[in-house]
Amino acid sequence: MTVFAAEQQFHDAERPLPSHQARLACRAGLAETTAGVAPGFVQGNLAILPEKYAAAFHRFCQLNPKPCPIVGMSDVGNPMIPSLGIDLDIRTDLPRYRVWRDGELVEEPTDIVAHWRDDLVAFVIGCSFSFEEALLADDIPIRHIEEKVRVPMYRTNIPCEPAGPFSGPMVVSMRPLKPKDAIRAIQVTSRFPSVHGAPVHIGLPQSIGIADIAKPDYGDPVPIGPDELPVFWACGVTPQAVIAAAKVPFAITHAPGLMLVTDLKNKHLAVL
Amino acid sequence: MTVFAAEQQFHDAERPLPSHQARLACRAGLAETTAGVAPGFVQGNLAILPEKYAAAFHRFCQLNPKPCPIVGMSDVGNPMIPSLGIDLDIRTDLPRYRVWRDGELVEEPTDIVAHWRDDLVAFVIGCSFSFEEALLADDIPIRHIEEKVRVPMYRTNIPCEPAGPFSGPMVVSMRPLKPKDAIRAIQVTSRFPSVHGAPVHIGLPQSIGIADIAKPDYGDPVPIGPDELPVFWACGVTPQAVIAAAKVPFAITHAPGLMLVTDLKNKHLAVL
Repeated sequence: MTVFAAEQQFHDAERPLPSHQARLACRAGLAETTAGVAPGFVQGNLAILPEKYAAAFHRFCQLNPKPCPIVGMSDVGNPMIPSLGIDLDIRTDLPRYRVWRDGELVEEPTDIVAHWRDDLVAFVIGCSFSFEEALLADDIPIRHIEEKVRVPMYRTNIPCEPAGPFSGPMVVSMRPLKPKDAIRAIQVTSRFPSVHGAPVHIGLPQSIGIADIAKPDYGDPVPIGPDELPVFWACGVTPQAVIAAAKVPFAITHAPGLMLVTDLKNKHLAVL
Repeated sequence: MTVFAAEQQFHDAERPLPSHQARLACRAGLAETTAGVAPGFVQGNLAILPEKYAAAFHRFCQLNPKPCPIVGMSDVGNPMIPSLGIDLDIRTDLPRYRVWRDGELVEEPTDIVAHWRDDLVAFVIGCSFSFEEALLADDIPIRHIEEKVRVPMYRTNIPCEPAGPFSGPMVVSMRPLKPKDAIRAIQVTSRFPSVHGAPVHIGLPQSIGIADIAKPDYGDPVPIGPDELPVFWACGVTPQAVIAAAKVPFAITHAPGLMLVTDLKNKHLAVL
C-alpha cells in the first residue's frame, strides 16, 4: 500500500513508530487497552475465520461497506499483514482476543499463537476511533468521550445484505449532537468512507427500530439534550454480531475496545 | 470568468443559449416566470443599490456567505454583466422587478430602464433552484415541488453579521426529508457553497426561533411526515428582507420567483 510504503520510507529501526511500539507492548503482554494509544494511527476491528467461511465473510463485507469497511486482510494462513504495519503479527499484537466456537465465546486469551491454523484468514475492519479523531479535531464534542463511557450501540431494523451464513441487522453507534454540529459531522465523516463514513441515520431512532434510546444493546447510555439530535453511524460491532449469529465452528475477534493498532494514519484515510 | 468563457467559446449567434433566449423573452415582455426555464442554467436573486450603500451591502454579503452568496455583480452604473451572460442587461432581462424607496415597495415594473442611474450597483446572489436541481438529480424528492407550491421560508433567531445599515435575522427555506435523504442532501448541497451550500439546521425548528412550522413567514406551508425531519437552508430572501429593513432611500430587487437567468451552469458551481 502506498500509505504504508510512505511510512516505511521514514521508518527508523532505532525509533519505532508509536503504532509499532503499541503492538510490541501488546506482544510483551504489557498493554491493557488501545484507547488513546498511538494517536493519529488507524485502529481496527479484527475478525479471523477459517478459509472455508472467509470468502462468504469477505463477500458480506463487500456488500455492507458501511458497517464492515475492510482496511486490510491477511493471506490464508499467514499471520503477518505487512500492508498494515511493520512486523505486524496478528496472533500477538492485540491486547486481548475472543475465541468463538459454534457462536459461543469460549476463551479470551492475550494471544492466539496456540489457536493459529494454516487455514485462517484475518480481516481488519475500520473503526470509529478514526472518524472520532477527525470530529474532535474539528471541535465537535463527543458525549461518550466527555462522559468517559463506551459509545452507546444499538441493533437496528436495517438489514445487512446477506452472504452465505452471514446475515443480520446493522448495529449502529450513536452520538448526540447539536443540529449545526450534526451537519458538520456529516460533512467531516463523509470524508472517511473506509471507517464507516457518513451517518446512516439522524434524529428518529424509532424509525430504525430503536425502541428506547436510553437502553443501548451494547456500550453505555449517554444523555441527549433537548437541543440535540441523536446521530447514528454504522458500527464495526455489526460483523462480530453477524459472526456470532452465524454460529460458525471457529472464529476469533478482538475483545471489545482492544483493537489492532496499525501503521496507517487516520488523516490518510480521508478521501478529500 | 472561466465558466463564461467556456460557454462563449461554443456560442453560436444563430442559436442562442437557452438562458440567453430566456433573457431575450424577458426583454421582449414575453416572460411570466423563470421557474422551469432554461434547465441547467444558474438563476439568481437580484439586489441593486446606489453606490453609497453598495460597499456596505457587499461587505454584508461577504460576512454572510450562506444566505448571500454573490455569483456576480456589475460595475458602478453599468447595467451589463458580461461575466454572467452574453448581452446580459440587468435593466430588462428579468420578468419583473421590485422598486423600493425608504424600505417601502413602490412599484413592480417589468423593466427598470427608467429607474437606472449612473450610481447603481447590481448584485446577483445564488438561489436554491441550483441546489434543488442537484437534489432532484440525486433522486431526493422535494416536497414543495411535488405539491406545486412555493418553498416555505421562515425568519430565524440566527443573527446575520451586520454591516453598515444592513442587519437582521437569517431567513431559511425548509424541505422535509427522510433522515437518510437528509444526510444525502447535506452531502449533495455541501458541493454547492455558491448557492447556499449545506443546510444551516436540521430537525429542531424551535431552537432556531421557528415557533410554528406550519406557518411560514414567506412562501407556502408543506406537510412533514412522521418519518421526516425538517431541513433548513439559508435563503436568498435574507438580503431582500435586510434591504427592506435598512430602509435605504432607493433599491431594486427581483420580484419573488422571477429571477435572473444566467449563462452559468449549475453543475459548474459544484466544488467537487
